[in-house]
Amino acid sequence: MKAVVIHAAKDLRVEERDPGDPGAGQLDIAVEAGGICGSDLHYYNHGGFGTIRLREPMILGHEIAGTIRALGQGVSGFAIGDRVAVSPSRPCNTCDYCLKGMQNHCVRMRFYGSAMPMPHIQGAFRQRLIAEAWQCHKVADGVSINEAAFAEPFAVTLHAVNRAGSLLGKRVLVTGCGPIGALTILAARAHGAQEIIATDVMDAVLVKAREVGADRTINVAEQAEGLAAYSINKGYFDVMFEASGNERALRAGLETLRPRGVLMQLGLGGDISIPQNMIVSKEIDLRGSFRFHEEFALAVDLINRQAVDVKPLLTGIFNLDEAIKAFEIAGDRSRSMKVHLAFS
Amino acid sequence: MKAVVIHAAKDLRVEERDPGDPGAGQLDIAVEAGGICGSDLHYYNHGGFGTIRLREPMILGHEIAGTIRALGQGVSGFAIGDRVAVSPSRPCNTCDYCLKGMQNHCVRMRFYGSAMPMPHIQGAFRQRLIAEAWQCHKVADGVSINEAAFAEPFAVTLHAVNRAGSLLGKRVLVTGCGPIGALTILAARAHGAQEIIATDVMDAVLVKAREVGADRTINVAEQAEGLAAYSINKGYFDVMFEASGNERALRAGLETLRPRGVLMQLGLGGDISIPQNMIVSKEIDLRGSFRFHEEFALAVDLINRQAVDVKPLLTGIFNLDEAIKAFEIAGDRSRSMKVHLAFS
Amino acid sequence: MKAVVIHAAKDLRVEERDPGDPGAGQLDIAVEAGGICGSDLHYYNHGGFGTIRLREPMILGHEIAGTIRALGQGVSGFAIGDRVAVSPSRPCNTCDYCLKGMQNHCVRMRFYGSAMPMPHIQGAFRQRLIAEAWQCHKVADGVSINEAAFAEPFAVTLHAVNRAGSLLGKRVLVTGCGPIGALTILAARAHGAQEIIATDVMDAVLVKAREVGADRTINVAEQAEGLAAYSINKGYFDVMFEASGNERALRAGLETLRPRGVLMQLGLGGDISIPQNMIVSKEIDLRGSFRFHEEFALAVDLINRQAVDVKPLLTGIFNLDEAIKAFEIAGDRSRSMKVHLAFS
Amino acid sequence: MKAVVIHAAKDLRVEERDPGDPGAGQLDIAVEAGGICGSDLHYYNHGGFGTIRLREPMILGHEIAGTIRALGQGVSGFAIGDRVAVSPSRPCNTCDYCLKGMQNHCVRMRFYGSAMPMPHIQGAFRQRLIAEAWQCHKVADGVSINEAAFAEPFAVTLHAVNRAGSLLGKRVLVTGCGPIGALTILAARAHGAQEIIATDVMDAVLVKAREVGADRTINVAEQAEGLAAYSINKGYFDVMFEASGNERALRAGLETLRPRGVLMQLGLGGDISIPQNMIVSKEIDLRGSFRFHEEFALAVDLINRQAVDVKPLLTGIFNLDEAIKAFEIAGDRSRSMKVHLAFS
Repeated sequence: MKAVVIHAAKDLRVEERDPGDPGAGQLDIAVEAGGICGSDLHYYNHGGFGTIRLREPMILGHEIAGTIRALGQGVSGFAIGDRVAVSPSRPCNTCDYCLKGMQNHCVRMRFYGSAMPMPHIQGAFRQRLIAEAWQCHKVADGVSINEAAFAEPFAVTLHAVNRAGSLLGKRVLVTGCGPIGALTILAARAHGAQEIIATDVMDAVLVKAREVGADRTINVAEQAEGLAAYSINKGYFDVMFEASGNERALRAGLETLRPRGVLMQLGLGGDISIPQNMIVSKEIDLRGSFRFHEEFALAVDLINRQAVDVKPLLTGIFNLDEAIKAFEIAGDRSRSMKVHLAFS
Repeated sequence: MKAVVIHAAKDLRVEERDPGDPGAGQLDIAVEAGGICGSDLHYYNHGGFGTIRLREPMILGHEIAGTIRALGQGVSGFAIGDRVAVSPSRPCNTCDYCLKGMQNHCVRMRFYGSAMPMPHIQGAFRQRLIAEAWQCHKVADGVSINEAAFAEPFAVTLHAVNRAGSLLGKRVLVTGCGPIGALTILAARAHGAQEIIATDVMDAVLVKAREVGADRTINVAEQAEGLAAYSINKGYFDVMFEASGNERALRAGLETLRPRGVLMQLGLGGDISIPQNMIVSKEIDLRGSFRFHEEFALAVDLINRQAVDVKPLLTGIFNLDEAIKAFEIAGDRSRSMKVHLAFS
Repeated sequence: MKAVVIHAAKDLRVEERDPGDPGAGQLDIAVEAGGICGSDLHYYNHGGFGTIRLREPMILGHEIAGTIRALGQGVSGFAIGDRVAVSPSRPCNTCDYCLKGMQNHCVRMRFYGSAMPMPHIQGAFRQRLIAEAWQCHKVADGVSINEAAFAEPFAVTLHAVNRAGSLLGKRVLVTGCGPIGALTILAARAHGAQEIIATDVMDAVLVKAREVGADRTINVAEQAEGLAAYSINKGYFDVMFEASGNERALRAGLETLRPRGVLMQLGLGGDISIPQNMIVSKEIDLRGSFRFHEEFALAVDLINRQAVDVKPLLTGIFNLDEAIKAFEIAGDRSRSMKVHLAFS
Repeated sequence: MKAVVIHAAKDLRVEERDPGDPGAGQLDIAVEAGGICGSDLHYYNHGGFGTIRLREPMILGHEIAGTIRALGQGVSGFAIGDRVAVSPSRPCNTCDYCLKGMQNHCVRMRFYGSAMPMPHIQGAFRQRLIAEAWQCHKVADGVSINEAAFAEPFAVTLHAVNRAGSLLGKRVLVTGCGPIGALTILAARAHGAQEIIATDVMDAVLVKAREVGADRTINVAEQAEGLAAYSINKGYFDVMFEASGNERALRAGLETLRPRGVLMQLGLGGDISIPQNMIVSKEIDLRGSFRFHEEFALAVDLINRQAVDVKPLLTGIFNLDEAIKAFEIAGDRSRSMKVHLAFS
């Protein structure tokens, strides 16, 4: 079978790999859709991020869905031909964090396509994948395999929304409307948010933000004072989701958060400068949100029930052979939201 | 009566003021002890902080206790001669924030000794003070008036401890052991913290930290690797109280916080750089804590019941006439923890 | 003007009253729709409930909407002809509970149509009503005045949903599908509930429950074992909303709640017997929910945005002259869900 | 070795059992102190409780401490001669509840001395016990083995205190001052409770309640109106710990809880009648608390640090040969608080 392997920055190759056979409790899956994520792009463009660097070739990819080809021994609840979304999250379920229900902080996590441990954890951009049955969630009839492959990034935003606490009746600001910001809009709406304002510096993505449910969008590159009206009376928003990783976005948003407002940080961006005195005097609650755990099943369920519509966020589908082209387009915010690979 | 008036940076004067008379519901108090706070020192040394600047002469001071001289009409529950700690916090109790129980965010707050609004809110470093009866809390027999004057800064730390959530059985790090850091140690202990480690860059204050209950102290200026042992296995501390306002202290502490740990920020320090990726990947919860509301009564109660001992934190008492000397010493961390004024 | 006045059990009269004139900050409203609530029915059928008894004639009614006839001095933001939903909740905003943001526990609450204090608080089933502008919330174009009059009971259920904590991805059981149970289904769906099962003893109301969003309904009078499947593995539901006030419903539901599940109690029913050992061993969290505060505005907003559809719950509209007939039908669960009065 | 075996109600025998040998990761412990608990007494007096009945002979006991005799393979951190408190809680750490951090709800729990599963889980009233090293917690020098054996019931109350949320500055009512009620007083004090009032129907236990820290005690059998003063203004207490399992105690306490107050239920008592309307109108939060998980280590730590003093609660120590006498005295509230067995 073929797999999408990163060797170094800008050195992406489609290579042959041995697919393996399903063991007890496992499924053999024909992967059909794989979404290119920001971390995939970091490996592709920079060979890693922060202190995490490629030290050996690694198959990329962790946003995938496909069709079951074969079942390992003892698997129940699945049949050959079932379509499934596959969670890339494989916690050990035995470490201290797992036994506290904090599986996303597992010290022995084996998340697809991660260069953090050595040997690296191989990813899922491959034609065939052997996965544990418990990683797999059935896709409903009427839902496309590409919608199903949105389950992973959608789960990331559902986790952030869960960590933000109840959104019922809340006013929400989303800064940064790439795939994560846009999916956060869907997640916040599903959780009862009353009003959602979204910002970015590019009109193209703001169009998508409105399409998935933002009540209003502001291009903060063009309207310098765009958010100013929301800072009177100590602030307007109850919750802010920062999905840009950008310092200016975070600081501009802080001005508009009400006292005791919650700033959920999803975007990654290295060191940033924050106004400590404002954090203190408004008693802001700045919380990180990292990956997901139970939210993967919820993401599949919401997509299955068509309670959310992720389709507007799919920019295009490229075949495995065009992987490099797909990565180039995925990395260009002016041209794409979410790019998918096909593996047939 | 005499009052301690700041006119500009380094221009502190003891001046005559009209004491006024108690109206309905008010008390006339002979002020006997007043603690010099960090914000008093900012006005004294710099004429303000951040965007808040002196624009007219202002009486300083908000950590005070004294004896009732006279009662206004309709006051019950107090008698002439009662000693009281006086809360400097005077929320409007009618704005949106007050009606949500967030009085410390009152948009019309009149906190003693604050140059934020114009005209400035005059402070309480004065021989006589007219205060509302509801600001006043009786001091128990056997408690000195100076201990009582610790109620205000102690309330600040009790508020931070309240905002941190339950501390029962928790491991706590306190960074910065000035008066606020040291009182935080007392507050965290009163709230059930299991283990308290405190850091600072000066041995003198660390001695005091141990005296008020720190299990261990680390001079991070001398022991560069002092906290390193606490960062293994993703971190050791459940809650960190940052009372230095120092960027390095905050960043060093973050390394030692466990996933989903809480970083309570009390110290003020302007813009600081934080490692956004660590906040995200450990899902840190960074919360500001600002002043207090109900915690003032609790502070007085804990001091009255001698459930905490603030006496080790009192460096010295200076008479009103020596106000400048008192401010100079209060501003020198190598020589002082908390400096009090006397007003007789 | 005419008003619907209860004198004693079964002694309901339509009487003349003086409408009064709007003072500063007040609105003069032509009431156009009024929903008959369970408490109105208790006064009508039994002259009160529990220890609360009628001691003088009282105008009933607190679920109302109408059109502005005139504005008192200083009112802004409203115009003659605006249609408004009027909150019956008038907290004092000065007592201890109000200043903690717990206005629904105000010790001086003046809630329309309540015989708790003496003199009684007169209600709003009247042709004209003088109300404070802050009680009034504009109704959007395209929303009928009868939909607007659902804001009050819907706010009751939104408050319960708020008190239940986040419902995102949660499995929800609703026991009792009268107006409050049915509106709870709408509220839980708006808050992200993943699956909603509803029970009652009458098929007629279960039809309505499905119409407003229940995934499945069970007639527990006919299917004795209807909920049994949900009690395996210690329980299935994360949150239960008890809207029947019925002991058997509560006890049957408890069996199906997961450990640490939340049982929100909305229904009133006097003394009931609970299985204390199950509450302990499953660590159930049984919480009362009473009226609402901020949720009234949210209820109007959700109805205005047509995020929920309350129309299926309106059984019929009766003119003021037929008030007694309206109350008789409203009290018969086999014939009605929510009955409205018209006042023209 | 000898063990204390219950065969049926009132049929308690001291019998020989094979002690076994420590396997990998296990310790061989000479049991030296064992506290008789309410559930032991239920088996002794009634052959079980509720639906849980003895179906085969079972060694009783789960509150124990002793000295290590031998170490199994691979054990580190312990040495022969170390004294340890042993947690009776053995969750599977693989079921859904364990993987959510809710080990006390483990579906495969093997808690010492429990007749719930078949075969029954044998208890720890025996001269020698083979336990997993992770069940064992070292006892500090200067702490007696009998104090150490209080770790288990103290952990039960620490769990309840944890589930009650922060107690800092809170007013607390404890109803029922048997061993659990009395230990709750210690736990609540350790967690920062401001004021603790305790009630019971026997003066003897109220003396102990004051000895361990209650600010005031009320004999509600003698003072019918004892709690009445606390019910004005809608209530006085923020949190109530119900440790009697008695309906009258629960109902009397409810009258004194403030709106949104928390009632932690620890006592077991079968079906009880509650005033549903008061639960609703005061929005009471009634929460069960069951056993413990992480709190066992905390209990040992607090006892080790002498942060709490459990010694006043020890009524007497009886040798194994006098087990029946010990159980009789333990069951007589007028003569005993906590009775211990010795096993030498």
